[in-house]
Amino acid sequence: MRTLAVAALTPPPFPELVSGHVDAVGHQSQRWAAELGLVSTPDALRRLDRANAAELAGRTCPDARPEQLRLLTDLFTWLFAFDDSCDDDELGQDPGRLAPIVGGLLDVLDVLGGPAPSGLATVAGPAGAALHDLCRRVRAHDTPHLLLRFANQMRDYLLALLWEAANRERSRVPAVAEYLQMRRHTGGVRPSLTLTDLVYGGGDAAHRADPRASTLDNLATDLVCWCNDIFSYEKERRQGGDGHNLVAVLARAADAPERSGLVDAAARFNAALGTYLRVESELLIDADAETIRFVTARRCWIRGSYDWSLRASRYQ
Amino acid sequence: MRTLAVAALTPPPFPELVSGHVDAVGHQSQRWAAELGLVSTPDALRRLDRANAAELAGRTCPDARPEQLRLLTDLFTWLFAFDDSCDDDELGQDPGRLAPIVGGLLDVLDVLGGPAPSGLATVAGPAGAALHDLCRRVRAHDTPHLLLRFANQMRDYLLALLWEAANRERSRVPAVAEYLQMRRHTGGVRPSLTLTDLVYGGGDAAHRADPRASTLDNLATDLVCWCNDIFSYEKERRQGGDGHNLVAVLARAADAPERSGLVDAAARFNAALGTYLRVESELLIDADAETIRFVTARRCWIRGSYDWSLRASRYQ
Repeated sequence: MRTLAVAALTPPPFPELVSGHVDAVGHQSQRWAAELGLVSTPDALRRLDRANAAELAGRTCPDARPEQLRLLTDLFTWLFAFDDSCDDDELGQDPGRLAPIVGGLLDVLDVLGGPAPSGLATVAGPAGAALHDLCRRVRAHDTPHLLLRFANQMRDYLLALLWEAANRERSRVPAVAEYLQMRRHTGGVRPSLTLTDLVYGGGDAAHRADPRASTLDNLATDLVCWCNDIFSYEKERRQGGDGHNLVAVLARAADAPERSGLVDAAARFNAALGTYLRVESELLIDADAETIRFVTARRCWIRGSYDWSLRASRYQ
Repeated sequence: MRTLAVAALTPPPFPELVSGHVDAVGHQSQRWAAELGLVSTPDALRRLDRANAAELAGRTCPDARPEQLRLLTDLFTWLFAFDDSCDDDELGQDPGRLAPIVGGLLDVLDVLGGPAPSGLATVAGPAGAALHDLCRRVRAHDTPHLLLRFANQMRDYLLALLWEAANRERSRVPAVAEYLQMRRHTGGVRPSLTLTDLVYGGGDAAHRADPRASTLDNLATDLVCWCNDIFSYEKERRQGGDGHNLVAVLARAADAPERSGLVDAAARFNAALGTYLRVESELLIDADAETIRFVTARRCWIRGSYDWSLRASRYQ
């Protein structure tokens, strides 16, 4: 199935790039996670190591300086560790247990990386302390609009996890349109793109609200998430997949075998890539430097996450 | 109980103001709702009329020009109509039916009031068409950071409704901390404050991300939501309240009678009002014009929603 996926997907026609700082930053990020208690068992550490957060950052943001790459890597480390903790102990299919944890993390986000009320990090546990640390470092970049956007998008991510958990609890597989929309939030891609804009210097509100730019942003988000779904489907299926994957959602909607879902998912990826390229070329006709930075960030994300998915042992 | 609530709450020490345009704007907004199909039965129209969206707008934003008041009133009309549709037919306690509707509305938000793909409004129904109209008008104000924030906050509101519906389905009453956090989103107060910033000209990212300002914003949101909970508790209880009310949450957490929950809720409101006044005075020491506009908007909201709650027949 994975071979079929690779063969069916059009490789994004952008250069494959990777930062030279991946190894160093990867070690630092793992230490950060361990010191904050984000991972506390050898098994959790092994899973995090296999996810290779630093390589994903190094591919999606190849031009970043080491400290910028570190921030992005730490965000991925956080997302992977939280994702793993949702898998452990079936937390991610129990909204009654997940909701108070999400509530605590939303309390952290509301502080926007500013001075934290005493006890805030303790209440929200290691994930809360680490999330506050991320917000604090985003705040230090002194780009308030990106700080606010990052916090908002992390909030959407956490709220979308509750939607996912409620579905899992009742073994509900969402319909295609609903899945496509919610998938934009469940993977944490939006806040990751915002941190990329922080690095590249793009993403101010005026450019971001331009209809072509927001279309491009939605397409880039979809492409990254769908690519991830397609590559991870086989592993998820082996682990008793719960239907929150584009391949499963499409197969179920068509009442067709999963192979057909895979072909459909790949066709959607390829069509969306075509649309992306068309919208991108329109946007670049009269592009200023800010727009070019915005587009560059999305190109790197589409290509980088494709290459990372191809290689990541996480999905094999 | 309602008399007890009134007696226990400290009236916010800001002037009671109301716009002179309430009646005219109220009629326009009702026509808007009817034309877009937001309300389609005499009963729905009667409920909307009793909610008095225009008076809430006229009190929370007393200095608005008629067309500005209209935008805020239409948002309230939309929120009240959607809230009523969640109550009807038990939609608001059935996440399996609510989630596809929320998904369609999130698709609308992703367009940010720009040119809509064909069929978008049809798929999302009258609520989708009306939401797109609101976004389109926010976009026309040409303050992209507020457009992006409005869309994000409406997204949070919709995702939080799914949390509420999942709780209702399993008759779950959230614990206090979780409720307090999620209440910031379930009432639609955050996007309403953003539209108020649009009117008053406040709310740029640099000011909004200031730790004192974000604390003030959180406190103002809490005060508005808690006041609403306290005044609406008796009506909700008569209608078979589901526990998503500060009074019920506090009473349950303390394993105490509801009267005790009401006293506790009022005490929390009064304490938060005291904190608000302290933070506000700190913020005003070195305030620029932008900060004054930001504070004015929150003062008007706290006082206006208190006065509206006192009078609204919706809660009697």
